[in-house]
Parts: sequence; C-alpha cells; structure tokens
Amino acid sequence: MAETERVTAAVLIIGDEILSGRTQDTNLNFIAKYLGTFGIDLAEARVVGDLKDEIIAALNHLRDRYDYVITTGGIGPTHDDITADCVAEAFGVALYEHPDIIAMMAARWAGELNLARRRMARVPEGGSLVKNPVQGPPGFQIGNVFVLAGVPMIMRGMMEDVGPKMRPGAVVIARTVRVEGAGESMMAAPLEAVAKAHPALSLGSYPFFGPEGFGSNLVVRGRDEGEVLATIEELIGVLADVGAKSITRVEI
Amino acid sequence: MAETERVTAAVLIIGDEILSGRTQDTNLNFIAKYLGTFGIDLAEARVVGDLKDEIIAALNHLRDRYDYVITTGGIGPTHDDITADCVAEAFGVALYEHPDIIAMMAARWAGELNLARRRMARVPEGGSLVKNPVQGPPGFQIGNVFVLAGVPMIMRGMMEDVGPKMRPGAVVIARTVRVEGAGESMMAAPLEAVAKAHPALSLGSYPFFGPEGFGSNLVVRGRDEGEVLATIEELIGVLADVGAKSITRVEI
Repeated sequence: MAETERVTAAVLIIGDEILSGRTQDTNLNFIAKYLGTFGIDLAEARVVGDLKDEIIAALNHLRDRYDYVITTGGIGPTHDDITADCVAEAFGVALYEHPDIIAMMAARWAGELNLARRRMARVPEGGSLVKNPVQGPPGFQIGNVFVLAGVPMIMRGMMEDVGPKMRPGAVVIARTVRVEGAGESMMAAPLEAVAKAHPALSLGSYPFFGPEGFGSNLVVRGRDEGEVLATIEELIGVLADVGAKSITRVEI
Repeated sequence: MAETERVTAAVLIIGDEILSGRTQDTNLNFIAKYLGTFGIDLAEARVVGDLKDEIIAALNHLRDRYDYVITTGGIGPTHDDITADCVAEAFGVALYEHPDIIAMMAARWAGELNLARRRMARVPEGGSLVKNPVQGPPGFQIGNVFVLAGVPMIMRGMMEDVGPKMRPGAVVIARTVRVEGAGESMMAAPLEAVAKAHPALSLGSYPFFGPEGFGSNLVVRGRDEGEVLATIEELIGVLADVGAKSITRVEI
C-alpha cells in the first residue's frame, strides 16, 4: 500500500486538570478509535497545561508535522480557557465574534450576552465552525486544526462533524491471536521473525496475567486485509510449539 | 513561595496500543497524582508510538526541559519493546546485561534464559535499577529518566521505588468549591478577578451538567495553604450574587 495513502493526525490535550491528576483523560482513546474508522493514523499526542507559550509551541509543531491536529479543552468562558487565543496567535490571525454563534447565543439566552459568553463566540479569522450537537457553542476549524471542547460528551458530539471534514485514509485492519499459558519470552523469537517478514504490518504483543492465567494478545495491524489474515495464520503456525495451553483468534 | 522550589516532571508514554485506541491509558493519571504527593508538578506528557526516532527525540526534549522524566511501556521481551535501546542511544551509552537481573532470572527460570529474556536484563551503562515488586524484571533509572513498565499494575509497583529517588517539592494544596445552578458564564468575571489577585495560585473551573443539574467545580491550587484557604472564602464571597442554588466546599 502506497505511503501516500497514510493520513496522520495528532491530539493536543489542553488542561491543568489532566496534568494535576484531577481528571482522567478519555478523549485520546475515543479520538484514536474514531480516527481509525476513517483510516487516519493517530501518530502522536501531547498534554500541556493552560499556558499560552506551551500551547502555541505544541500546536505549531504538530500542525506542521501531521495532516491534522485535534485539540481538546480550554474553550469555555473562564479566564483559564485560552485555547482560541492561542490558536489565533499560532496562525497569526485575530479572533472575531462569529455572527452565527452570537445569533445562537442570543436566541438561547435572550440577549444576556455578558463578556464571558461572548468570549465563547470568538473564532480565528479564516476559521469555520464545528457543530456542537450536545450543549454550548460550537468548536472551530482553522487550516488543519480542529478545536474541540474538553468535556468528553461534548467532544464526542463535535467529532461527528470533524470526521467528514477529513480526507480519509485506507482503513487499518486489526486481528488478534490470544495465546494462553505461554509467556512473551517464549514467543518473542517466532513473533519477531514473522514481523520481519511483513514490514508493512505492525505486530504488537500485549501480555496479560492474573488469577485467570497468563499469556499475551498478539495483534496484527495493517491496511492489506489479505496480508493481515494470512499473517494471523502464519503466527498460529509458528507458535505451535511454544507450549501454549491455547491459541485462539479473538475479536479484540 | 520561591520559584526554585518548583520541581517538574514529564511523562513519556510509549506504545502503538495507546495511539491505535486499543488501550486506554491510565498511567498518566496515576503518575500525576503520585507525583503530587511529593510536591512534584507534572508539566507535560507525550504519547509516541514504537518508533525509535520518535522516542529518542521526545525523550531528549523532555529530559533537557524538566527535572525528571518517567517513561512507561516498551520494556518487555518482544521486538516492539525498544525503549531500553532508545534510552541508551539518547544518552549515548551502550546497554549491558545487568548481573542482578540475570541472577534474578536464573533463579526464577532455572537457567532457561533465552534471548528474549536476556533482552529484558539490559540496562544502559551508568543506569541503576528500579525495583519491581509485582512481576518480571526491574525498571531502571539513568540520569533524570526513570524507565518503567507499561502494564499499570507493574508501573504502579515500580513508582513506589521512584518517588523516594526524587527530590521532593513543596506540595500543592487543592481545595474545591462546588457551585450548583449557575453556569460558568455567570461566574467567569468574579473568578477572573480573584485569579488576577492571586497570581501564585491556579484557579480552574470544571463545569458539570446532566440530569442531576448543572454548575461548576472551582478548584484553587497553590503551595501556600493559608492563601489557598483564604482564596476559597474570597471566592465564596464574590459568588454570592451569581444566582447559584448552592455553593459548597467539597473534598474533590
């Protein structure tokens, strides 16, 4: 499969609450899976605090490097919500109050548009809106950057409008072989041999252990379904003599 | 509180399985909270795949910039476990088989030390071991970098040996006011005024909404407990007329 078909994305998670441990991030995992359905590879993620210079530096690095960047967090009405300001500064443009957002807000709050609410209506010049089907104002897109809310329920709603705006890639197929009763150390050599024979695929080994037993889930990922399926069978073949209790194709 | 008392750390999460969405990371959140108990600020986190150049570049950036770096993942026996190699290359040193790990392995596996197992005994020259009280070989430390397992249960066990190896900082105190029945937009202006009056503190607003109501948790964080507690009372005072249903000091 041609390298040109690879479409990449990065996630930039913005928020002191993630770095302080107050909040367990779940947005990265959702976005990773969601992008996967469009054949887009999440290639990197970063978490930065509510600090202007950090946000701008990370954003500029990621948007230069990957096809798309998705940011989460920092678009609310309070003083620590500085994402829109940072994105505008990164792109060297001004923020303006988007008339559609002002109209939505005016309809909802019957004219009670205080400064904090108007703050959420600001979009960088040249940006376009990302629909928010859940609650509150929309996100926005500028260039290859999508700026979304940090609240998971809202972020997930916004992603429904982001996916179709992206150029899809060739979808990655993943298949798993679950090996029980044999440790990774016993499988490493045959696994590596198979991996080397299929440079276009990614082969991962994810061990498990606990009261119910031990072993490893071996995951084959790639864009050529035929090669993925054939490689799963090849793996099952080479693992025949590692002393496993069971080797099973599973759907995870 | 003097700026020199701030001790910073970064987390580097290594693994295709996080970026593909196969695995929901929970290590970052655990490490963030754990470092907090030592007064160490988690200042940044990155997630990279199992790619040598990416791992080395991220590690070199983070270890130059922060007091400590903690890596998770990629220290098992399989071909995709390349963290030790990358750390050694980043530090410009060779890997060697640590005699203590070889001795532990020999005792456990009665001499069955195949190449995959020996792979897990490799430590960069100049490195020291990080105890693993759970299962498998230890992690290691080299310079200001701690290299830990990715499996959460093992990583958590290893952290018990990492904390005491770090220079502690002044612990951050966090206190929360839960405001119900008033939106962030109504609180933004008084909150910002209080935040500006206390530049040494961090004030965050984390909205909630759902069937049980809406509002926001306002979190005050800082190293001077007296100032944090006084600021909580100040906040409660300035929020008196935002029309909230209730304003409560809570323990989250």
